[in-house]
Amino acid sequence: MQIDIKEVAVIGLGLMGGSFALALRELYPKCKITGLDHNDQHCIEALELGLVDRITDEISDIYEVDLIILAIPVNAIIATIKELENVSDTTTIMDLGSTKRLIVESVPNSIRKNFVAAHPMTGTEKFGPTAAFKELYRGKVVVLCNIEDSGELQRKVAKEIFSDMGMKIFYMDANEHDRHAAFISHMPHALSYSLANSVLHQENPKAIIALAGGGFRDMSRIAKSSPNMWIDVFKQNRDNLTQAIECFKSELAKCEKMVEEEDWDNLYKWMAEANRLHDIL
Amino acid sequence: MQIDIKEVAVIGLGLMGGSFALALRELYPKCKITGLDHNDQHCIEALELGLVDRITDEISDIYEVDLIILAIPVNAIIATIKELENVSDTTTIMDLGSTKRLIVESVPNSIRKNFVAAHPMTGTEKFGPTAAFKELYRGKVVVLCNIEDSGELQRKVAKEIFSDMGMKIFYMDANEHDRHAAFISHMPHALSYSLANSVLHQENPKAIIALAGGGFRDMSRIAKSSPNMWIDVFKQNRDNLTQAIECFKSELAKCEKMVEEEDWDNLYKWMAEANRLHDIL
Repeated sequence: MQIDIKEVAVIGLGLMGGSFALALRELYPKCKITGLDHNDQHCIEALELGLVDRITDEISDIYEVDLIILAIPVNAIIATIKELENVSDTTTIMDLGSTKRLIVESVPNSIRKNFVAAHPMTGTEKFGPTAAFKELYRGKVVVLCNIEDSGELQRKVAKEIFSDMGMKIFYMDANEHDRHAAFISHMPHALSYSLANSVLHQENPKAIIALAGGGFRDMSRIAKSSPNMWIDVFKQNRDNLTQAIECFKSELAKCEKMVEEEDWDNLYKWMAEANRLHDIL
Repeated sequence: MQIDIKEVAVIGLGLMGGSFALALRELYPKCKITGLDHNDQHCIEALELGLVDRITDEISDIYEVDLIILAIPVNAIIATIKELENVSDTTTIMDLGSTKRLIVESVPNSIRKNFVAAHPMTGTEKFGPTAAFKELYRGKVVVLCNIEDSGELQRKVAKEIFSDMGMKIFYMDANEHDRHAAFISHMPHALSYSLANSVLHQENPKAIIALAGGGFRDMSRIAKSSPNMWIDVFKQNRDNLTQAIECFKSELAKCEKMVEEEDWDNLYKWMAEANRLHDIL
């Protein structure tokens, strides 16, 4: 480890921010972590759980830290970046948001070099400080977007931290990220919410759900995700999301048509095509 | 344990049948298990893995066993039951198929008391004898359908085996089972296959799939399931499946409309509704 991280601020003390704090503590045992969160209960829990060393509600308290982590819903990221124009030249600001284009576009020019746009492809359906655990990021993918716009120091900080956290780093343009993320994450969330509601709206959902095996459990898990977070993602990636939903709908329509027309040979081929995932994932 | 199971035949030596054989060996260490499978390679593997003690391709060899397990695709179950009219009065025949109405309707009257219609709500996306493991059934739900049509001995055998395997037993009419199973299992498979194909049909699927986090992994896992098995399920439960797909489509359409119309307040409420799954599952 070459870089030195002595002071950190984590804005947003939920699953993502709390877990990030725990992982940082392992990498930099001596670093001091300050927490910020609009939710007072989250602040109390984060202190009790040892996620952070102190709490502040003054953004000016964190202008001089080495690293600021924005682990809040994506619209809040955009609002908060604008309050960070006075940070030190050596501060690295990283967001962990699930969308990237609107976020990188909204960073003030004066602190563009301070900023690193990151999307760690990890999470669980749980939320709040008590959901945090230090292994959340290990072995997972993180996408860094438009990294050429970040400063040299900030690029180094980001790469070293994510790499020491055991993450696999991908580099990508923010537009490309948002298109890919719509398919691999945002649209699947829309499906999972739809699946959960289609069962919950049946006459006796408990009798149906009592029969749930691994398939339904897996497919409905992310329907438990926080609406606060996902509303913002859907807002910011609206066009890519609706395009991905259209692609999904056309596959589902093919499936339904083959079932209705009893076109079993082609349905077999279509299922076997999906099986190609075995070779990739 | 009160019943005595000395001889068993397992027809279909894949994930379900192989795992059932392993679980039976734990319950009845002395029982002799005969395997039948149209796939010679599966027969060889099942012997090598110790899933079965011997292989036969003569159905008449198993007329006298205590228990016959049908762990084959649901259309094959219907064909095979008709070949079992000569079993002993004390034989219990259990199928493990994912649909139930057409199966119970197709059991010959002369052996209706021998037959127990069971649907264990478990499985993985893997298939073949090498996928078998003895814990597949433990802690899971099994649905027994139209149990009043099974004989007294056969009801006892089924209850005792599933209960000793650590399963939670539900009783249900076959029609009700098929409606519920369409929502909780069959339709989710159609969604997962559709999701996988919607990504695989993009220009550069590998670049997208490289970003997969837990959400996509979970939602696409059952898209790896065997088409041989699922074609038959879709055939046998066609009407319930298409009705469940219609319910899902109407939820997805709601979601899409709210996104397109930027109706974030109602989208929030809709996501929060889906969150009610937290309380049930």
